[in-house]
Amino acid sequence: MTRPVTIALDAMGGDAGPSVCVPAALRMLKQREELRLVLVGQQDAIGPLVGNPGKLSPRIRILNAEQVVAMDEPAADALRKKKQSSMRIAINLVKEGEADACVSSGNSGALMATARFVLKTVTGIDRPAMMTALPTKHGRCHMLDLGANSDCTPEQLFQFAVMGSVVAGDVDGINKPRIGLLNIGVEAIKGNNTVREAAALISQSALNYVGFIEGDAIADHAADVVVCDGFNGNVALKSMEGTAGMLYHFLKQEFRSSFYGRISGLIAWPVLRALAKRLDPRRYNGASLVGLNGIVIKSHGGADQIAFQQAIHTAMIEAEKQVPSQIGRLLSEQGKH
Amino acid sequence: MTRPVTIALDAMGGDAGPSVCVPAALRMLKQREELRLVLVGQQDAIGPLVGNPGKLSPRIRILNAEQVVAMDEPAADALRKKKQSSMRIAINLVKEGEADACVSSGNSGALMATARFVLKTVTGIDRPAMMTALPTKHGRCHMLDLGANSDCTPEQLFQFAVMGSVVAGDVDGINKPRIGLLNIGVEAIKGNNTVREAAALISQSALNYVGFIEGDAIADHAADVVVCDGFNGNVALKSMEGTAGMLYHFLKQEFRSSFYGRISGLIAWPVLRALAKRLDPRRYNGASLVGLNGIVIKSHGGADQIAFQQAIHTAMIEAEKQVPSQIGRLLSEQGKH
Repeated sequence: MTRPVTIALDAMGGDAGPSVCVPAALRMLKQREELRLVLVGQQDAIGPLVGNPGKLSPRIRILNAEQVVAMDEPAADALRKKKQSSMRIAINLVKEGEADACVSSGNSGALMATARFVLKTVTGIDRPAMMTALPTKHGRCHMLDLGANSDCTPEQLFQFAVMGSVVAGDVDGINKPRIGLLNIGVEAIKGNNTVREAAALISQSALNYVGFIEGDAIADHAADVVVCDGFNGNVALKSMEGTAGMLYHFLKQEFRSSFYGRISGLIAWPVLRALAKRLDPRRYNGASLVGLNGIVIKSHGGADQIAFQQAIHTAMIEAEKQVPSQIGRLLSEQGKH
Repeated sequence: MTRPVTIALDAMGGDAGPSVCVPAALRMLKQREELRLVLVGQQDAIGPLVGNPGKLSPRIRILNAEQVVAMDEPAADALRKKKQSSMRIAINLVKEGEADACVSSGNSGALMATARFVLKTVTGIDRPAMMTALPTKHGRCHMLDLGANSDCTPEQLFQFAVMGSVVAGDVDGINKPRIGLLNIGVEAIKGNNTVREAAALISQSALNYVGFIEGDAIADHAADVVVCDGFNGNVALKSMEGTAGMLYHFLKQEFRSSFYGRISGLIAWPVLRALAKRLDPRRYNGASLVGLNGIVIKSHGGADQIAFQQAIHTAMIEAEKQVPSQIGRLLSEQGKH
């Protein structure tokens, strides 16, 4: 049997709280026998969803947490006033080695601030970043940072490249992931000083650097890992989401605009459904907070059970591969700390 | 009759040169009786496309230009060595008041550098910006800057807001266009110092400021004008283009993946075609180089005749509305220069 992996879940996080987290957890438990789970949150809310306590699998336990971090709570408040929250306790379990990773659908800012405070960063990493997988024409790519760091130094972008290389390599099993640096042109003179200096650092390293890439090349899978500051990453990701939503909106409108449209939409339905399935955002749920001394996965606040299971899955892979220590190792191999 | 409008065309610009520019020019001439055209470029290449010189409309003339700026020529070289290029001479005509605007599908960097050198910026505008219209769920919006300025000060972002307000108001006939500032969250504390200071400047002005908007809100038409630095604008625009291209690619793949897919694709074809028409990038061709003492429209390098006509159309509107002097006026009304 595979080595057991223990995941701590912030069962109170997200718009739906335990009603999504708990059923998703139970389903994952059935599917993956190496999985151990700690559901952290209000006993009264979680208990009834878990079912008969007598029949409870020895692989799952509930850890009571009185407090809940609100979705709109300022990060600083959560950090100072919510020391008994489900989020904080789940992260503490990772710190204490009682869990190999934790997953939360809770407040992003609070999660990042708390994780950073409790776990600290890997030696040689200035600041953690948020990273996710994205669909492209030819398989998935990974992008970081997605908003944790508005402004970045060239050194930070270099560190993102190292972290991205480890995660993309582990999660998608890619040997020597291709690293691209997001810019507004592909020529060496394009962009600003920060990206040009970052390009120099990355190209001198042992990473598989493929150069500058532009926004439209993300979808072409020009790189396995797209490195950028958190401002650009967030703008790119959300612009892509907005465009996909707009096209879906127009498609629906056109298929509803006439009798012919409705009939042809009905006939084309299986094909359109296959497309929707392929791009299902639930398949991409689970952003990694990389660069910490511990694995923390941020699930979307509006995640449903399928999406939350995907986030647990990502946490399990990163735990099995021991991403944080690999980041430290790869960073030291670059002679950068 | 409407007041005559004279447009200078860089007939040598773009991937296709005169073979696209000249036929597009002749068609626009038929459609718009107020239009006067100066085709600037190599007489030998343009002449045969215009037809019998004896029958040439008195509303069109050819102005010979020996040199052509190559699509990949560094902007500095074009500026220094191509003083007799079709691009330079077309811009000179605007400077000298012989044309009300010029249109070029040529090298963007060279066009921006040359236009800035020849025309200079409107008093109170530090740097010109590149601006285009974009499709959204509910009509067009406008975005600037799209890449002319990688890094911007809060004052520059404020100036972009003024310029965007004028162009969106004129080109789309919007009264008090809603101005949004691109950011990575909508709360006042989000983003970096630059956007926060820009927000303070814009909100204190008489512009119709609606606050921060995120990347996905562009497609929701949360603002009529999206203001951002050229790095973010370029990343957003290209990420959107990439996503649209990817979805189109997947749609084609799904409709071709089986016999059923092919049949249903055939049936759904008129509907899909209506959608494609709605999003046809040719309808959005023609980026304005705003902030200059003169109107310069950049048409896409790969523009076809339909797209080039659209760019001429935009040039005509901006000329009729006298965008540059309006920018100067609106800026002075804000008490900012």
